[in-house]
Amino acid sequence: MTEPGAWTAAEIAEQPDVLARLLAGAGEIREVAEIVERRRPRFVLLAARGTSDHAALYAKYVAEVCAALPAGLASPSTLTVYGARPDLSDVLFVAVSQSGSSPDLVDSTAAARECGALTIAVSNAPDSPLAAAAEFSADVRAGVERAVAATKTYTAELLALYLLLGGPSAPERAAALPDLAAGTLARSDPDAVATRLVAASRLVVTARGFSHATAREAALKLMETSYLSAHAYSGADLLHGPLAMVDADVPVVAIASPGRGGAAMMPVVQRLREIDAEVITVGSEPAADLRIEADGVPEELLPILEILPLQRVAARLAGLRGHDPDRPRGLAKVTRTW
Amino acid sequence: MTEPGAWTAAEIAEQPDVLARLLAGAGEIREVAEIVERRRPRFVLLAARGTSDHAALYAKYVAEVCAALPAGLASPSTLTVYGARPDLSDVLFVAVSQSGSSPDLVDSTAAARECGALTIAVSNAPDSPLAAAAEFSADVRAGVERAVAATKTYTAELLALYLLLGGPSAPERAAALPDLAAGTLARSDPDAVATRLVAASRLVVTARGFSHATAREAALKLMETSYLSAHAYSGADLLHGPLAMVDADVPVVAIASPGRGGAAMMPVVQRLREIDAEVITVGSEPAADLRIEADGVPEELLPILEILPLQRVAARLAGLRGHDPDRPRGLAKVTRTW
Repeated sequence: MTEPGAWTAAEIAEQPDVLARLLAGAGEIREVAEIVERRRPRFVLLAARGTSDHAALYAKYVAEVCAALPAGLASPSTLTVYGARPDLSDVLFVAVSQSGSSPDLVDSTAAARECGALTIAVSNAPDSPLAAAAEFSADVRAGVERAVAATKTYTAELLALYLLLGGPSAPERAAALPDLAAGTLARSDPDAVATRLVAASRLVVTARGFSHATAREAALKLMETSYLSAHAYSGADLLHGPLAMVDADVPVVAIASPGRGGAAMMPVVQRLREIDAEVITVGSEPAADLRIEADGVPEELLPILEILPLQRVAARLAGLRGHDPDRPRGLAKVTRTW
Repeated sequence: MTEPGAWTAAEIAEQPDVLARLLAGAGEIREVAEIVERRRPRFVLLAARGTSDHAALYAKYVAEVCAALPAGLASPSTLTVYGARPDLSDVLFVAVSQSGSSPDLVDSTAAARECGALTIAVSNAPDSPLAAAAEFSADVRAGVERAVAATKTYTAELLALYLLLGGPSAPERAAALPDLAAGTLARSDPDAVATRLVAASRLVVTARGFSHATAREAALKLMETSYLSAHAYSGADLLHGPLAMVDADVPVVAIASPGRGGAAMMPVVQRLREIDAEVITVGSEPAADLRIEADGVPEELLPILEILPLQRVAARLAGLRGHDPDRPRGLAKVTRTW
């Protein structure tokens, strides 16, 4: 037996190396990307569950903003539970899964392929049933993940999806990521923020644009490891209704990195301060509560950095609350849905 | 001044009439639907915020299962904040909004139209900026909504979207809805369930398939009116991770109506009972805690009925907790995002 949280801590720390390894092998994913570019899909559907669903949400923004392709998150149940058989020619269907083993993801990928989609599996398991079901696959090369709560496979999925959908210059644009990830991990101190959250039973995480994926993943990580009730909202949606549940007992983590998404968050942060919410900010400016190193990468890559200090906060908070982040209760590594 | 909750109660009770009025005028929406059918779009994008976003989620299932068209929820920010200009020819872009006034929805609809999409506004405001921005519009005819928390405009949006995307037989298939809605409202007694929830600060709502929209909308309604922290999960996703936060203090509302989605919920309900969760069921069988009348409509229309007893529970619970469901704190009827 290892010390509680040792696996999670080790896997969080491994991420700069995982990103470097994936970039070193970027040529393989770019070969798949070139096949996609030649087939000229018109629409992208992304299918995933859990943490990988947040990587899929990120990929939706990359497809729309970087590749100018409309994209949507697939509802696997329409293809499996309801047996829908839409015409998916001209559709790129990307299934994202750490294990490559979730039965409904495998089934919906097979169904999408039958319906004419160009199918690609993005997973950490190149020999998995999902990789076999898809026409092409991309290996995220994150190595064995022992902790039940996913960390390094998430950031590896983000980078793999960017390499797949971000265009020919994607590897070059991402080149600084391993160093920035190492710098962000070295700089970010989770203790002060974890201490501020130790008594919270509810929490909101908010962001806009590419960083929406970060908000969703941070909320899930806090729920999985610390049993907090954490809601993620787009900054725009938060003001639409759920703001009613924010009071002094509900801290809000606001992701406000450099770029257009972060700029669009400014009025949201201002409104939160007006109602005296307890606000914790993630960003690159010195005043941020959790600082990331972001110089040298374009905005669309910031989600790979923003999640790092939040993973550390989730692990630290679990420890402070007496839980083992390596083995959250009620959680299985592969989801068997039907 | 009216009595607290009087507007909400009146608007909930009005829904059978609203549905009947919309069906009586179904021809107008079917005219727009016929234009859509002639143009033969290949993909559907749905854009909305807040409660209308749940109507959009419902429409995604209708498009995929009933019309065999792949569909996705648009991220308005990619067209507005990031200025993406994808090729949207062959795309049907449906914007859903009670007020038709949210600026980012108006802007993203205008942008989608410029990018070649067939654009339709579904709203309760036929003279709104959104209706002007879209090529076609469908009026949900719900009448003035005074309570801030949307009820009758939600079910009217669901039915309007079904009439738009559910095919030529949609009006006939929906014909029994007004009577079933009246029966469901007459039968459902929110008091016992509201009393069970009165001490809860956290809650989970879960469903699969078409009813996923019901879970999302019920969670939002409980948050808006009773300041509960309510999470909605697909039954499949719930087992993937968030189950870790369910314990005896976190009641779970499980929507298990007749049909394939409800059948797929059975193992989820069983797993919840195994971990001794407090489960509240919505369904048509006599043992359901909140019973709906569902005989005579196909599964894809059940979300219009399932939400009714949950709206009543949200309103009743707000009253029990000393809040006014007509005027939730922190909530504005139109969201101004940018």
